[in-house]
Amino acid sequence: MATVTVVGAGMMGSALCLPLLDAGHQVRLVGTHLDGDIIASLAASHVHPTLKLALPEAIRPYGIERIDEAMQGAELIGVGVSSAGIEWASRTLAPFVLPSVPIVMITKGLTWDGERLGVLPDALTRHFPAAVAAQLAPVAVAGPCIAGELARRVPSAVVLTGRDRVVLDAVTALLRTDYYFPFVSEDVVGVETCAALKNAYAMGIAFPTGQHEAQGGQAGSVARHNAESAIFAQALHEMRAWVSALGGGVDSVLGLAGAGDLDVTTNGGRTGRFGKWLGTGLPLAEAIAKMEGATLECLEILSVLRQALPRLEAEGRVRREALPLLLHMQEVALDGKPVRVPFEAFFQSAK
Amino acid sequence: MATVTVVGAGMMGSALCLPLLDAGHQVRLVGTHLDGDIIASLAASHVHPTLKLALPEAIRPYGIERIDEAMQGAELIGVGVSSAGIEWASRTLAPFVLPSVPIVMITKGLTWDGERLGVLPDALTRHFPAAVAAQLAPVAVAGPCIAGELARRVPSAVVLTGRDRVVLDAVTALLRTDYYFPFVSEDVVGVETCAALKNAYAMGIAFPTGQHEAQGGQAGSVARHNAESAIFAQALHEMRAWVSALGGGVDSVLGLAGAGDLDVTTNGGRTGRFGKWLGTGLPLAEAIAKMEGATLECLEILSVLRQALPRLEAEGRVRREALPLLLHMQEVALDGKPVRVPFEAFFQSAK
Repeated sequence: MATVTVVGAGMMGSALCLPLLDAGHQVRLVGTHLDGDIIASLAASHVHPTLKLALPEAIRPYGIERIDEAMQGAELIGVGVSSAGIEWASRTLAPFVLPSVPIVMITKGLTWDGERLGVLPDALTRHFPAAVAAQLAPVAVAGPCIAGELARRVPSAVVLTGRDRVVLDAVTALLRTDYYFPFVSEDVVGVETCAALKNAYAMGIAFPTGQHEAQGGQAGSVARHNAESAIFAQALHEMRAWVSALGGGVDSVLGLAGAGDLDVTTNGGRTGRFGKWLGTGLPLAEAIAKMEGATLECLEILSVLRQALPRLEAEGRVRREALPLLLHMQEVALDGKPVRVPFEAFFQSAK
Repeated sequence: MATVTVVGAGMMGSALCLPLLDAGHQVRLVGTHLDGDIIASLAASHVHPTLKLALPEAIRPYGIERIDEAMQGAELIGVGVSSAGIEWASRTLAPFVLPSVPIVMITKGLTWDGERLGVLPDALTRHFPAAVAAQLAPVAVAGPCIAGELARRVPSAVVLTGRDRVVLDAVTALLRTDYYFPFVSEDVVGVETCAALKNAYAMGIAFPTGQHEAQGGQAGSVARHNAESAIFAQALHEMRAWVSALGGGVDSVLGLAGAGDLDVTTNGGRTGRFGKWLGTGLPLAEAIAKMEGATLECLEILSVLRQALPRLEAEGRVRREALPLLLHMQEVALDGKPVRVPFEAFFQSAK
């Protein structure tokens, strides 16, 4: 049994508290400055307003102003902020981190500094004391895990990745329950790249559903599953091209972080709903409005990849011709062009 | 423009006639001895009774008794029989085949002769005249393609595989239209193994949907997508183990024949419905009865793999420990045991 402090009380950070609690740990959940209403609700009634669920009373909520208290004696730190909050998390956690206290993060994304694409475990340690950053390799969680399902204890398998195998195995042991199944991968770049890219590609996989709805469907129960699955396969093909370009391995693309998470995001995620709206022919601004302020990670990742591609091409690490789906998704979701999936250009070699 | 004769007037054989016709060919569709009602309906009204759709009049239907006439001048032969009919097709086509007339087959499956697992393109030529069989490498079609959608011209991408690259490219050129996108792979074993295995694995991916229904659902819109997608990723992991054991490549598993077809079969196929019934806890015989006589390829392939596994294990080509999902699906669908997905045993190395 360990004392675990999770920072970030959004849906996924809060859901992670369930297996931690069920694994026997003492769990503290710290809201960020954006989570005030969530912490107030948890303190008053244990109900998590966005998960729409009463959490077990044993999960103790803390406002950000009490973070010092929440960090006292922590033996594992969880990071559940959004990708946009990773800089904040790095600065906020800096006073508390120790080489001996592992960090597990569920935040996903890629960063672009003008020269290279980076993964978030590296971004998280940026503001940590140098001596700690040098010794502490964060463990990142990826794979198919919708927060609302995990919070209701639906069987979920995830992949944990990190650069320190001993820490990785230790964190895995702390997280395992009879419904939460963590597996281990040492391919940090491959796993994290997949975790970020799937948010973009799930949008494109949903285009045919929107096109089908816009046409009022057709005779029988016929949908456009053929087109969806063709795009699904092309998405994996392009994810593999990116992973290879950045030095990751194909196993990650085929596994929980790649195909698994792409599948769940397509079936149950908001990115799919956004892609569906675009597929119906709705103008970009109206499709964004339909999402009622939900964070659209897909736009962020599409933009980062647009910035990074020329450099990666110039270095001979990937060919633009291998990425017709990505380029089309960027035209649709960043430039407002209509959906017209370029099937004929699919499955070109990446180099 | 070519004259094309397709043998097998079931849903997929008939659907294949659409892109052939739209590509400008003269198309003849020959029913097997099981397709009498279909051919009679097509002759009377052009309506295909199982596709529930009027086919274009230009597709000319032939009963099996008129196969001689239908084969006259054929420049491409299509094979659209079920996997159980491959022996019949081999004998029936034998008098008509020529080295210069390519064959394209949509039949999928694996054969087990007591010593090795074989792919259907090899089974098809078994009864052909030796001189023809030596020169004629059938082209097989795989990938995500539900017949009812193809027949309604939903954009569909498929992979064509065969051992003769020249023939492969020629057939690809004959099949391409603005909604049917054939891509080429020379990995016959990988593509055909994926095409066969996906019918088994799609059953397992549907287990959680049945479990969810049996429990009457849960609060909110929560399903069991996390569990489904974990099984999806494990299915790809095990398909890769089989493909590697038989000498195929990982590209096929990641591509249209593997991940693409697994995705579409899960979303739109009868195998998924069968798996869902098993997931609800329905006894095996009742789940089979629910399918009302539909061909359950999954049972055939599960049985073939059970026969083949000891030999492949003895040869050191695959480890049983890497296949917990397959072994569980066999227990459920062949032996009538209850569903209890062994998540904890997932993602073990194949060798």
